[in-house]
Amino acid sequence: MRVLGIDPGLERVGWGVLDKAGSQLKVQGYGLIKTPKVAAQDRFLQIHEEVTAIIKKHRPERLAIEKLFFAKNQTTVMDVARASGVIILAAAQSGLEIHELSPPEIKKGVTGVGNADKKQVQFMITKILGLKETPKPDDVADALAIAAAHAMRPDFR
Amino acid sequence: MRVLGIDPGLERVGWGVLDKAGSQLKVQGYGLIKTPKVAAQDRFLQIHEEVTAIIKKHRPERLAIEKLFFAKNQTTVMDVARASGVIILAAAQSGLEIHELSPPEIKKGVTGVGNADKKQVQFMITKILGLKETPKPDDVADALAIAAAHAMRPDFR
Repeated sequence: MRVLGIDPGLERVGWGVLDKAGSQLKVQGYGLIKTPKVAAQDRFLQIHEEVTAIIKKHRPERLAIEKLFFAKNQTTVMDVARASGVIILAAAQSGLEIHELSPPEIKKGVTGVGNADKKQVQFMITKILGLKETPKPDDVADALAIAAAHAMRPDFR
Repeated sequence: MRVLGIDPGLERVGWGVLDKAGSQLKVQGYGLIKTPKVAAQDRFLQIHEEVTAIIKKHRPERLAIEKLFFAKNQTTVMDVARASGVIILAAAQSGLEIHELSPPEIKKGVTGVGNADKKQVQFMITKILGLKETPKPDDVADALAIAAAHAMRPDFR
């Protein structure tokens, strides 16, 4: 089973692709979609195209994406929500199953603790995936954590 | 100049197409996209397809869409924001210019008053467009109000 994890955003979209075979997770690829400071619609177009291209290249069967909640920075949350709609659309158009995970589900899935801090999540995801270094920037590490948290769920099939 | 106005949503998306010739507004069509209570991604797929079909049929040059702000019902706002991203993407893929209007801009554009109530907006949009009855449901009247408010801007070109 191959999972594409995405940490959604308007300026930066982190992504990571994992295979699960038995209880093992194996990294297939990861990276960052970065959009320039142009009008939102042009950034949506770019995100839609790049996510579609990543799916075409890596052929994941599922998308695992962060479920959005309200934060202090309301303008950013609205942008992230709109970009998230575009990403989910791209995945649905490619026939992927969509799974949304809340931040505590992601943290608990990777570290065992629902309120783990960012450093701990990054430490654990690096260990779990057998990487030499934590992937940078944070958006990429977060995307891998989202994919891993989904793939390591006890009810994952 | 032909404008597609959209009142975004996940369950209901109101739309209306207006022509502006000189100072006259003429209705070309309006309607409602209604999605069943299925998974969000399937609703995004439907909204994307139907918006694309409306654009193909009516060939507007611009999209006027409500700019989203935070409301009390936070879950709904997040859904509307994601659907809004999908709608803006569909318009951008068809080459439309995108214009976002805040609720006070829409109300002021149609009634002259930024805090006009819903009834007043519906009364005025019916008069301005020379319709015999107010289009139903509210989402459709709102979509026409969004298009009209954009088309009646003093700096509209």
